[in-house]
Amino acid sequence: MSRILRVAAAQMGPNPRDMPRDVILERMIALLDGAAKSGARLVVFPELAFTTFFPRWLIEDEADLSRFYEQRMPGPSVQPLFERARTLGVGFYVGYAELTGSGRRFNSSVIVGPDGEMLLKYRKVHLPGSKEPRPAQRYQQLEKRYFLPGDLGFPVARGPETWHRPVLGMLICNDRRWPEAWRCLGLQGVELVCIGYNSAAYDPNGGNTEDSERRTFHSTLAVQANAYFNSTWAVSVAKAGDEDGSGLIGGSCIVSPDGIVVAQARSLDDEVLMADLDLDAGLQGRAPGKMFDLGLHRRPDQYQRIVDQAGIEAPA
Amino acid sequence: MSRILRVAAAQMGPNPRDMPRDVILERMIALLDGAAKSGARLVVFPELAFTTFFPRWLIEDEADLSRFYEQRMPGPSVQPLFERARTLGVGFYVGYAELTGSGRRFNSSVIVGPDGEMLLKYRKVHLPGSKEPRPAQRYQQLEKRYFLPGDLGFPVARGPETWHRPVLGMLICNDRRWPEAWRCLGLQGVELVCIGYNSAAYDPNGGNTEDSERRTFHSTLAVQANAYFNSTWAVSVAKAGDEDGSGLIGGSCIVSPDGIVVAQARSLDDEVLMADLDLDAGLQGRAPGKMFDLGLHRRPDQYQRIVDQAGIEAPA
Repeated sequence: MSRILRVAAAQMGPNPRDMPRDVILERMIALLDGAAKSGARLVVFPELAFTTFFPRWLIEDEADLSRFYEQRMPGPSVQPLFERARTLGVGFYVGYAELTGSGRRFNSSVIVGPDGEMLLKYRKVHLPGSKEPRPAQRYQQLEKRYFLPGDLGFPVARGPETWHRPVLGMLICNDRRWPEAWRCLGLQGVELVCIGYNSAAYDPNGGNTEDSERRTFHSTLAVQANAYFNSTWAVSVAKAGDEDGSGLIGGSCIVSPDGIVVAQARSLDDEVLMADLDLDAGLQGRAPGKMFDLGLHRRPDQYQRIVDQAGIEAPA
Repeated sequence: MSRILRVAAAQMGPNPRDMPRDVILERMIALLDGAAKSGARLVVFPELAFTTFFPRWLIEDEADLSRFYEQRMPGPSVQPLFERARTLGVGFYVGYAELTGSGRRFNSSVIVGPDGEMLLKYRKVHLPGSKEPRPAQRYQQLEKRYFLPGDLGFPVARGPETWHRPVLGMLICNDRRWPEAWRCLGLQGVELVCIGYNSAAYDPNGGNTEDSERRTFHSTLAVQANAYFNSTWAVSVAKAGDEDGSGLIGGSCIVSPDGIVVAQARSLDDEVLMADLDLDAGLQGRAPGKMFDLGLHRRPDQYQRIVDQAGIEAPA
C-alpha cells in the first residue's frame, strides 16, 4: 500500500513589530484554510511565526520582552489557530518563543496532530548570533541572549495512521546548516523533517556581505544535501520579506529524499506550497545494502572527534 | 599577505583492464606536465588511479588479485610519476590499492609534497558494495571484500611554505557523501580537501536506476554542501567514462568554501581543471563570531547518538 502524505509549506510574509497578534493569527488561519482546501494533512509554518523576529532588537525591559514568549502552548493568544486546525482535521508545525514555568527561555517548535494533540516538541540547538549587543549597530542578532540552547536532543515521533505513521522530526532555522542535527534525526529513521526559519537576506546594518541570492542558495543547498544524506523528505519554510527594515530571504521549499527541490516559493509573502510525499521514497537510499544503509556503511569508531570537541583543533 | 594556491584536478578517462601500467603512467604524467605548465602546485588524481576499478570483478586467484595492489608507495611501477613530479616541483594526491606487509588491504590515498616527500596518508573509511558477490550479475561492487575499512581516522597535515601551509585533508569516493567524514576534517581546521572517485554512471547490470545526470548531481551536491558546512575548499576528481563496459560519471569539480563550483569537467576523458584557491576564503564562514564558528555554535552534548550507534533505531 502506498504511503502518500500531502503536505503544505505555509511561507509567511513579514510580521512587523506593531502588527497585532490577531492579525498575524488571521493570516496563519487563511494559509491553513487554503492548504486544507487543497487537501493538505500537515502544514508547516515558520520559526517564531507568531511574532516579529524580535532577537534583532535589544529589549532590556523584561515586560516588553516577555510579550514575545508563550508560557504554555497553546496559550490564549494562539488558541484560534489550534481550534481551526482541529476543526479542519489538519496537523501543523509551528515555531514559537517558549518561556517555561521556571523562567527558562527556548526557541521552540511543536508538531500538532490532526486531533489537536501535541505529537512532538523540539528546542533549537544551534543558536546563532551573540549574547551581548554589538555596539553601534541598529540591528542585532541576540538569539544567544534570549534563548538557551535546546536540551531535548533531536527527538522524533510517529505521525497518526491517517498520515501513514511517518517518522517525523524537526529543526529550527540555523539547525538546518548543521549536518550533526540531521544525522541525529536520520539515525532514528526520520522520514519527514519540518523546518521553519528567519534568515537575513543581507546585512541590515549595511555591511558588504553576501547577497540574498547567495543566501537563498545556501539555505536550499543545506536542505537538499542533508535530505539526500539521510534519505528523508524535508519541508523548509521561511518568514520572508522586509520586517521593520530588516530583510529576510524566502525560498521555502519541499525537498525529496533524493535531494531534489519539488516545490519552491517565488514570493517574499504569505504563500502556500504543496506536494504529495511518497514516504517510502527514502528506501531508495537507505534500504538494506543500499548506498545509505547506515548500519552497513557507517564507522562510528572513526567519528569520536565529533562529540569530543566543539571547536577547531588545527595542526601547528 | 594573500595565500593563493594554484591547484589542478586531473580527471582521467577509463583504465581498461588490459591497459598496461606504463600506458596509464604516461597519461598521468601528461596530465601532470600540462598542469605544471599552467602553474599548478598541487595536482589531484582519482581514486585507484593506477588500475582499472577492479572491485567490479570477482577475482578469486590471489596472484591475479595482488597485481592491483601496491606493496610500497612509491613502488617500482609508479616511480616514474613520483620522479616527474619531483623534477617539476609539483605535489599531488593519488589513490591506490594498498597491501601492507602483514597482508592487510586498504583503499588508500597519499598527498606527496613538491619535494617528493609523503605529506599525508589516508585509508578510505566508507567502503560501499558487498563482501560476497551478487549472484548472476556480470558486474560486482566488491570493495568490502577487497579492502578493510580505514583505520587512520581522518588525518590532516599542513602543506609546505611554498603552498602557504594549508591544512590538507583527504577523502576517497563514497566518503564524500558522509558528513561525519567532512566534519572530522573540519574540526581540524581543514582548508583543502582532496578527493578521488570512481562512481557508477548507471547500473551496469541493466537495472532501472538513476541516470548519469542524477548521479553527477549527487556527487557535486555532496561536495558543495560539505565544503560550505566546513568552510573549506575541495577538489573532487573522477576516473570517468566506459571502463570495460561499466560506465563511470565524470563531473570532477573544484568547489569553494562557499559551496560554489568554480570549475567542472565537461568530458569523460583525461582533462585538467585549474583554479587559484584563496586559502583564507574559508574565514568568511568560520572566523570568530561567524555562522560556522564551530566552537561557538556546536553542541556536542546533543550529538552522542552519532558515535553510539551505526544504524537506524526507529520508534515503534
